[in-house]
Amino acid sequence: MSSVEQKISELAVEEVSVNGNNAQEEDGDVVTPWNVSSSSATGIDYEKLIVKFGCRKLDQDLIARFEKVTGKKACPMLRRGMFFAHRDFTAILDRKEQGKPFFLYTGRGASSGSLHLGHLVPFIFTKWIQEAFDVPLVIQMTDDEKFLWKDMKVEEAKKMARENMKDIIAVGFDPEKTFIFNDFDYMCPAFYENIVKVWKVVNANQARSIFGFTPEDCMGKSAFPAVEAAPCFASSFPHIFGKRNDIPCLIPCAIDQDPYFRMTRDVAPRLKAAKPSLIFSSFLPALQGAQTKMNASEPNTCIYLSDTPKQIKNKINKYAFSGGQQTVEEHRAKGGNCDVDISYQFLKFFLDDDEKLAEIREKYTKGELLSGELKALATAEVTKIISEMQERRKAVTDETVDLFTKVRPLAFKY
Amino acid sequence: MSSVEQKISELAVEEVSVNGNNAQEEDGDVVTPWNVSSSSATGIDYEKLIVKFGCRKLDQDLIARFEKVTGKKACPMLRRGMFFAHRDFTAILDRKEQGKPFFLYTGRGASSGSLHLGHLVPFIFTKWIQEAFDVPLVIQMTDDEKFLWKDMKVEEAKKMARENMKDIIAVGFDPEKTFIFNDFDYMCPAFYENIVKVWKVVNANQARSIFGFTPEDCMGKSAFPAVEAAPCFASSFPHIFGKRNDIPCLIPCAIDQDPYFRMTRDVAPRLKAAKPSLIFSSFLPALQGAQTKMNASEPNTCIYLSDTPKQIKNKINKYAFSGGQQTVEEHRAKGGNCDVDISYQFLKFFLDDDEKLAEIREKYTKGELLSGELKALATAEVTKIISEMQERRKAVTDETVDLFTKVRPLAFKY
Repeated sequence: MSSVEQKISELAVEEVSVNGNNAQEEDGDVVTPWNVSSSSATGIDYEKLIVKFGCRKLDQDLIARFEKVTGKKACPMLRRGMFFAHRDFTAILDRKEQGKPFFLYTGRGASSGSLHLGHLVPFIFTKWIQEAFDVPLVIQMTDDEKFLWKDMKVEEAKKMARENMKDIIAVGFDPEKTFIFNDFDYMCPAFYENIVKVWKVVNANQARSIFGFTPEDCMGKSAFPAVEAAPCFASSFPHIFGKRNDIPCLIPCAIDQDPYFRMTRDVAPRLKAAKPSLIFSSFLPALQGAQTKMNASEPNTCIYLSDTPKQIKNKINKYAFSGGQQTVEEHRAKGGNCDVDISYQFLKFFLDDDEKLAEIREKYTKGELLSGELKALATAEVTKIISEMQERRKAVTDETVDLFTKVRPLAFKY
Repeated sequence: MSSVEQKISELAVEEVSVNGNNAQEEDGDVVTPWNVSSSSATGIDYEKLIVKFGCRKLDQDLIARFEKVTGKKACPMLRRGMFFAHRDFTAILDRKEQGKPFFLYTGRGASSGSLHLGHLVPFIFTKWIQEAFDVPLVIQMTDDEKFLWKDMKVEEAKKMARENMKDIIAVGFDPEKTFIFNDFDYMCPAFYENIVKVWKVVNANQARSIFGFTPEDCMGKSAFPAVEAAPCFASSFPHIFGKRNDIPCLIPCAIDQDPYFRMTRDVAPRLKAAKPSLIFSSFLPALQGAQTKMNASEPNTCIYLSDTPKQIKNKINKYAFSGGQQTVEEHRAKGGNCDVDISYQFLKFFLDDDEKLAEIREKYTKGELLSGELKALATAEVTKIISEMQERRKAVTDETVDLFTKVRPLAFKY
């Protein structure tokens, strides 16, 4: 299929899915920006979700094209299907091939305390793909969303956002090419103009059908989606993008954010602006199992960036759901189930060595590798990633945050 | 009644009126932010409107207190009941008496071409009361509202706002004490924070009941009321108000804007902010009669700031609805009706001399003064006001606008 054919086919799929679908379906999977859960031990059925949301599968052909265009081997999360779906990713690969500019846009809400590994997955991937593409990145912290949805003061939301930024910066972004902002502190005419433009072309009915808002929800909830949509058109921000205008973006994000960008893609033509492209991740499962994702307010479901090696070891040993059998004898005889085993899932996200991962899978499935041994392997890998981030986190000061949040032109290669 | 009793009584009245009432009633009067009309030749029944909106009559006692507190004789619009109603005006008089700070807040949308006399009435009054109180003034130009409600580009709305500012500045405001802004160009963190705070405490049901929005209306319409509410709490803008915080404001405006501020007053306690006080004007009638107000898109209903003395004379002679009789003989015999006569209404708004006005009324009612003569008197008065403004308007350049729109601390006496 040519890239044009693919685009046409994508548009057709999108047509069907826009206007409605809270993804609260009878199959027991719930995926919304505010709730993710599954009744299955293997977690969300992502194949079904692709159909439901009307996005496209990120298949091996596309990954091969990515590798050809960038000259980089796909990272584990990409080649193993943790980033499993997309919208118009081909358009971004075309631009990369043609040397045309684009930028990355991602973000997160604000939460108290350290970020956990589930929060960091999209950022780890974004850092990796930023380097692969060598393009600027805009990161939005939606402290306003947090304030609107939760019982808290503006100052608390802002403070959380700023603390979260430190953890995000510790992932290793390049300050020359990365602009991080929180909505409450960055709000400016160019940003607001994009918000108002989006407000004008989506009506209350559509917002309700996309996001499921009710008349009892505060006005801010229905106003907010435009705030998350606005940075898709950030190339109109002269103080960040200079005179470059209407440059498209690629958004790496978890699939639960799709409603915002389905809406944004729907309105872009009416704003005479480029549609954002998207690349979607699945969720890093909670320690207790793939039925839910890590939840910051339940400490035992998460590995935090602030956890010590001992804490990581304890959490994985104590809580990481095992696909192994009840006794060693039974395990040796029947073997373990990698598809529900959280330690194995962690290795699948983070272990770079394909051969070693395949070997682990084989041995665990055959019962040659015990649950305790698998947990030790996962612990070692997670500890390595967290320790490296902690090292970088130590160097992140308020001044570092100022560097990333400073309004200034980003370095473009093109 | 003590000022405390009065406040309690006001609150009780407000309680009844908040949550609902588009003022589209069976008596034929329609008063909303988007539509004003009456089926009566004497125009809107303002006494009924006071009851309907749940505000209070601005009576002679209160005007006497204003004169005592400020040491200034009330201007014609105030003493003759064009500013006819209020909410918590007593609280502002208390503060003036006690030497406590407050500020004025008013505004308008943006419209193409010159402003007309109906637009200018609240500003003429605001300038006068600003001098009487000697307090800072914040003027909001809601170009975003215009963009959301009308089929136009952002740039057009912004340009209109800036041109309108020149006409407003020509009313004669003091740049030391007056900050004028348009939403699209001024949007900033402090402004946005107030907007989000209002968004959080009003739900979609309430917004619909106050403003009559439908699910087919764009998201921006239900988001907008918070944008008009936000400057009521402008004392939280450090770059304008310094460290003064939670200073209340008095809003001089036409009564059709009340829904915004009913909502704002309702939410202020939840924001732990001071409720705005209001003083409401009636509408300067259209030349054709008091059934409607001047309408910028129908040139023959208005006197524009840009009209020449000849145009003013022609418009009043040709279009100003007359309360006189069909023939001179009939007029001499039966006399004229000042209550529906537009020339007389103009004099009532602008002629400072009470004795002269009383004499005009008496003579016209008796038929001693003819319609043509009354029109000549009104023409002279309107021409005088417009000419003075035109003189000042000539001196207003883009630099003058920059002076008023510059973000800088306002001069406070207290």
